[in-house]
Formats: sequence, C-alpha cells, structure tokens
Amino acid sequence: MEFECLATDGHARIGQLRFPRGVVDTPAFMPVGTYGSVKGLDGADLLTSGSRMILGNTLHLALRPGIEVISRLGGLHTFMGWAGPILTDSGGFQVMSLGALRTIDDEGVTFRAPVDGRLFRLTPERAITIQEALGSDVSMVLDHCPAYPATPEEIDASLARSIKWAERSRRAAGEGTRALFGIVQGGVGIASRLRSFEALEPMGFSGFAIGGLAVGEPASERLAVLDALKTVLPHDRPRYLMGVGKPADLVAAVLRGIDLFDCVLPTRNGRNAHLFTTRGVLRLRNARYRTDENPIDPGCPCPACQSLSRAYLHHLDRVGDPLALRLLSLHNLTYYQMLLARLRAAIRSGRLAPVAQDILALEAGGSAVR
Amino acid sequence: MEFECLATDGHARIGQLRFPRGVVDTPAFMPVGTYGSVKGLDGADLLTSGSRMILGNTLHLALRPGIEVISRLGGLHTFMGWAGPILTDSGGFQVMSLGALRTIDDEGVTFRAPVDGRLFRLTPERAITIQEALGSDVSMVLDHCPAYPATPEEIDASLARSIKWAERSRRAAGEGTRALFGIVQGGVGIASRLRSFEALEPMGFSGFAIGGLAVGEPASERLAVLDALKTVLPHDRPRYLMGVGKPADLVAAVLRGIDLFDCVLPTRNGRNAHLFTTRGVLRLRNARYRTDENPIDPGCPCPACQSLSRAYLHHLDRVGDPLALRLLSLHNLTYYQMLLARLRAAIRSGRLAPVAQDILALEAGGSAVR
Repeated sequence: MEFECLATDGHARIGQLRFPRGVVDTPAFMPVGTYGSVKGLDGADLLTSGSRMILGNTLHLALRPGIEVISRLGGLHTFMGWAGPILTDSGGFQVMSLGALRTIDDEGVTFRAPVDGRLFRLTPERAITIQEALGSDVSMVLDHCPAYPATPEEIDASLARSIKWAERSRRAAGEGTRALFGIVQGGVGIASRLRSFEALEPMGFSGFAIGGLAVGEPASERLAVLDALKTVLPHDRPRYLMGVGKPADLVAAVLRGIDLFDCVLPTRNGRNAHLFTTRGVLRLRNARYRTDENPIDPGCPCPACQSLSRAYLHHLDRVGDPLALRLLSLHNLTYYQMLLARLRAAIRSGRLAPVAQDILALEAGGSAVR
Repeated sequence: MEFECLATDGHARIGQLRFPRGVVDTPAFMPVGTYGSVKGLDGADLLTSGSRMILGNTLHLALRPGIEVISRLGGLHTFMGWAGPILTDSGGFQVMSLGALRTIDDEGVTFRAPVDGRLFRLTPERAITIQEALGSDVSMVLDHCPAYPATPEEIDASLARSIKWAERSRRAAGEGTRALFGIVQGGVGIASRLRSFEALEPMGFSGFAIGGLAVGEPASERLAVLDALKTVLPHDRPRYLMGVGKPADLVAAVLRGIDLFDCVLPTRNGRNAHLFTTRGVLRLRNARYRTDENPIDPGCPCPACQSLSRAYLHHLDRVGDPLALRLLSLHNLTYYQMLLARLRAAIRSGRLAPVAQDILALEAGGSAVR
C-alpha cells in the first residue's frame, strides 16, 4: 500500500491509497461487509454505488464461515467475489461489545461465540494470523477499546494494554500482512490520546486509526480528540476514523484531516427505509409517500432514483420484498459516496469551508423532504 | 398482440408473441411478480435471467398497494419499472384458494382480504376493469377454478359459471383491454374440458389458457387433458398453461403444444436454496457445499455462477443475507429460461424428441449433483 497526499485545504486533505487491487481516492468511505458481504449487495452493486474499498469484520468471519473455509477457498476477495481492496478490523471492538460473554487478560480475550456458544480465543498474534489468512489489504492491530464513560484508571489500564498489544501485533505481522495500521485509543482525554499516539509512533505503522469513538460520547468530545490529533498524526500516512458515522460526522472529521471511514449506518438505515438525500432525511415508511411519484432524490444516480418512484419503493418495503433492502441500501451508500466525492472536489478547489457549511446546515435541518 | 407460429415439431411449436412493448419467443416462461415485483429481483435482473414477459397477480395488487395507487402512478409497467409485456391473472385462482374467507355466487366472489380483513368484491366486470387500470398487455377472464378432487356435479356447476363469467368478461372488455384470454376449465374430465373449449371458442378470445391444473392431480391426468386439447385448440392462437410447473412438467407440456407458462417454483425454490441445474437438483443447504469452490452450475450464465462458489452462496444463505435470495432466485430463473431456449432450439431443428428425453431423464434422476 502506498499513500500520497495530493492537496490540502486547511487541515483537510485529498489523497490516494494505492493497492495492487486498485486505487482509492481519499477521503473515502468503506461500506461494512460483516459476513463477507455488504448485506443485500453484490460486488457490482458496490461498484455502482461508487465504493472502491470495503471493510470486513474479522471476528464475524472467523465464526461464520470460519477462517479455514475462506482460506481454503482462496481468501476473502475470491470468496466474496470482490476484486478491490479490503480493510479488516482486528475483532477488538466486536469482542468488547460481547460484554459478559468475554473475559480479558493481558494475553488476549476469551469469549463464547454468540452464534453457537463455541469457546474462542483472540490474541494480538491470532488477530494478525487471521487477517493474513483472509488476505486483507489493510490489517488492524488488536486493541482494547474501553467502554464509555470510563474512569481515568480504566482508560489508563486499557491504553497500556492496547499499546502492548499493538507492539505484539506489529511483531507478529509477517509477509502476509500487506499494511498494518496502529489504533490510537485513550477515551475522550486529550492527554491519553496523545500518549497513545506517541507510543505507537515509533512502531512503524503504515497508517493510524482512531478507535474508541462513536461509542456514546458527545460530538464535542469526539471533535476535541480529532482537533488534538490533527496536528500530531504524520501527514504522510492515512488516518482512519473507525465506525463513524452520520453524514455531518464525516464532514466534521474531513475538516479535521481524516482520510478513511467505515460505518454500518447507510446500509442499516437503508434496510429500515431511513434514507439520506441532498434535501435531508427521508423516512420512506411515512404514509405521505404512498402515492409520491418522485424519485427518492432527483439528483441521485443510483438505480432506484433513476427509474423508480418513492411510491413503489414505499410499497416494496411495506410488502417486505427483499428488493427494498437492496435498493434502499444501494441508495444510501450512493449518497455517502457522492458526499465524499463532493468533499474531495471542494478540497481540490480550496472551497471546503462553504461546501461543508452547506452540508452541515442541511443535516442540522433534520427531515426536510416533503 | 399478435401471435405467429413459426415452426412445429410434432405437436410442439415455436412462435412469437408480438406486443408494442416487445417480442416474446414462445414457448416462454413468465416469472411471477405477485406484488409488482418478482420477489428480490429488479427489472435488470429479470432481463439478465432471459425473462421477457412477466405475470402480475391482479388480486394481490388490488389489495396492496391498491389499484388506485398504481393507476395514479401510470399503470403497472411504470410503477414497477418494467418496460416489457405483462400478463395479469384475473384473481380467480387466488380467490378460490382463500377457502372459508370467501363466498361465491353467480354474480361474483366476496372475500375478506387476508392482509387487513377488508371486504372485497370481485366480479367478471371488475376483474376486467382492474386489469385495464393496471395496463396489462394480456388480461384473463375471471374463472371459477374447482378444487381437486371434485364431484362431477361440482365440475359441471363451476364450468357453467366459468362459461358465463367468460362471456361477461368478454363483453366488459373495452379499449383498455389489449388482449384477452379465455380459460379452459373442467377439472380432469376430458369431456368437460372439451365442452369448456367449445363454449369459449366462439367468444373471440386472443388466446386460450388452460386453468385448474397443477392443483394436486396426478401428472398422468394432467397430460391426458393436454393430449385431448392439443388437437382442438386453434393453431393460430397462443396456449397458456397456468401455474405449471417443474422443469419436467414444462417439457411434457411443450411436447403437447403449450406456448406460455408461469410458476412461482423457480423463485420460491431459489429462496429456499433448492436449485435447478443441468446436472439435477442441488440442495445448497446441504453441509457438503460448505467448502465447495465450484459454481452452482458450470454451464450457467447467471451472475452467481459466473463469479461465486457454492461455498460462498451456502454461507450467504446460512447467515440469512438477502443477497442469497436474489442470487439464488436469479439462478433458478436463468435455468428455466435456458431450458425454454433449449426447447425452442430443438423444435426449430426438429430434434425435440431426443432433447426432451434427455431433460426428462435428468429430471427423473433427482438430486444428482455432488
């Protein structure tokens, strides 16, 4: 993986992530392919949406269908028929969210698989091995993501562990690891976040993720962390804000120098007929759309907006046709990719501030579509 | 609608149904778009599968979203974004299957909608009005489909009613009815079937459907009916066998001069991972496919077979991804369309008998795929 920053506008930047499997313009948004698929969408759909790089959830894939299956079938790209780059998480965040089902020690995490109760052990070394078996283009270190809120002692303890695990992940990474990102942790404390970065910095990572945000903290605290990190993270390496977020969150993060995003929001909301449009949020289940012959968003190039009415999509959702899940996910994903493209164009022309302001004003307006 | 018979091979024939919306090579198979969509598939998917004409269920659409909604949005083609021809049933068969929820008199049928308990009345005239509002390319008369088995008295009574309803349907059909098919009823009795046809014949229908089959009768009785009708149905008009069937049933019916089919089997079975292939039925949920890197059917041109393994599709089905419903329905539909194309080619070259024998032998073999 190579990264090149091509232009900046304030702290925001555009760049390219170059992989043997393709080039990704940044800032970029990665749809989440939990079980080796972005729910309801195939590879052609993802390309149609403008997506060029996707995220795979290591832990989910390790449980179903299992790493040995994917490995035997030639790795995750071949298995799911996706030729573009794939970033995999380490499973750290997912393990934390298992709550009482897992126990953590300094060596790693032990947990029972929610699917079948099998006992499963994840260590920094194992997280790397799994990601190598998947054939990830970008791997993540195993981290210990603290809960929110957490006491200073809890933050300190999880941070110390995350730093040790990052070091062990880095040492475990062999030929099969194509690029490895460190994950900056430290809760919402500025000092702890800076300490995390300083510890990771000498380890020689290809990029830096910011983890442990979007876990319930107020937006102001999240932005304060991004503001503190924007000047210290190395300019020549990509910056990935994990698990974020709503369109306004993406804009705010791009303004603070973030290059890479992933989030389930566009696809999950799509499945629930909660749609993003250039005129605000459209809740398609509202009865007012029963006879509305307009497309979801007249300016959108997605297949649904190109040929189908709100009334038809409202109907498909109402009768429970799985086609609704696909078309509405595809619409939301297209909205996200168009949003990122708009931000990239604004940075290129040095007009990010007014463009960002427009988008944030729209987002603040809430459900504006009649 | 124009119909031309282009060549015959025994009683089998190839032809063309020509509509302003497109040409359909016969024998043809129509996927069933119950609620204004072939479940999980969009228009592009249907074209990819080789489908050129689809069936819409009048009664389902009248209940959800309601005819006034579809009419207001420009008719069924515009509503669902399908530019090709659409045949609609009259609702007769669906009403019969409501059992205790409906009462039949000589004037029509009254029933409570299973969805919301609303009282609904269907008459021959109303069935025509609804199909005109939908903008059907081929409409069907309202018929009274007897249960199987039925007493001779029940058959006679329902047949008499079907004939009267056919006449009323014919009279009700105005400018908006582009083509109207009569429906031959009469259970599994040859005499009653012939009586039905003789009564319908002078009414001037554009084509003839054979209804009331595939309702539980043995295949031998069904084939006896087709054998009796194959010489009496007029050669210059299309013959549509309603609701049939399995691949072997289609082959047997094509041998007996049938031009048009519809059935939910390929899509419904697809959703249940019961797959048709040129080597026999493949039940994808079987654990043997967990690590099988072969496509479902190496000879199939569908998107799944072109790039994905049985193992991946088995996995998608297992984790409940709606993408499985789409890809597996699309595969089965492609199989059906390829089967029809193969039969058409065989008729064209006068080699239907050996080709049909091959297919029937395969079908008789059951689950042959390892």
